[in-house]
Amino acid sequence: MNRNAIGILASTMGVLLTGSGCASTGGAKGATASHSEIPRVLQGQAIAWNKGDLDGFMAGYRRSPDLTFSSGGKLTRGWQPMFDRFRESYVDKGSMGQLTFRDLEVTDLGPDSALVLGRWRVEGKDPDSGAFSLVMRRVGGVWVIIHDHTSRDAP
Amino acid sequence: MNRNAIGILASTMGVLLTGSGCASTGGAKGATASHSEIPRVLQGQAIAWNKGDLDGFMAGYRRSPDLTFSSGGKLTRGWQPMFDRFRESYVDKGSMGQLTFRDLEVTDLGPDSALVLGRWRVEGKDPDSGAFSLVMRRVGGVWVIIHDHTSRDAP
Repeated sequence: MNRNAIGILASTMGVLLTGSGCASTGGAKGATASHSEIPRVLQGQAIAWNKGDLDGFMAGYRRSPDLTFSSGGKLTRGWQPMFDRFRESYVDKGSMGQLTFRDLEVTDLGPDSALVLGRWRVEGKDPDSGAFSLVMRRVGGVWVIIHDHTSRDAP
Repeated sequence: MNRNAIGILASTMGVLLTGSGCASTGGAKGATASHSEIPRVLQGQAIAWNKGDLDGFMAGYRRSPDLTFSSGGKLTRGWQPMFDRFRESYVDKGSMGQLTFRDLEVTDLGPDSALVLGRWRVEGKDPDSGAFSLVMRRVGGVWVIIHDHTSRDAP
């Protein structure tokens, strides 16, 4: 995907890029350009989810025992336990429904770290929606989620 | 408060400092030392809360329209709206109860940014508990929360 495509994607997803970090990098412009790869990672996750491809969805998360996922007051630690938890909840494509992200807001925290806020929605048998906060890091040139705190909309 | 006191405080609060970030700072040791000031900020918040001092509690948050607070799928933007929301919910010391933080886990994201995970508990008329994820930045030498995603334990 080229930069124009990312621009269109960012626009479609309603992405807001903020340059509040990166004082140490000598300018927000370069940092913002690198951070603009982040929406593509999330878009890749949504595409994978909507194909019923849980492995592809999980590729957005750092494959590490240090990965942390908070939801409903519960902390899950490690990529594998998180994958297992999702696999228990979503046994097949039908149970996964259709996932969309919107209102993405990327705040750079440095050249290789960012805070990403947004909203998620799952449509299908069990419609659900809420807000997420991701902390992402660029590891080996690739942006991955190292922490995810997700909450559901109040009923 | 001197370093020893912070060490004792960190130990009391069950703080885990991880050095997964800061590749760009030339070593995690220095970064970890600077990040060790973070538990003091949170401890200051809890002390203020337990005196019924909402202003003191809010001093831990960046006084900025960019501050974001997520809870129950809802995003509140800006220090003042967040303060107003708290002030509506907690009208006096009695309604605030006694707040404790535990299981603090600080991950450095660079020399001036950190992810802080932990658990919170309020005891009193309306007992409540849950998990939080904070993104903190060091602004003018002082660590402040720039984003807070809080979720309640499932009933």
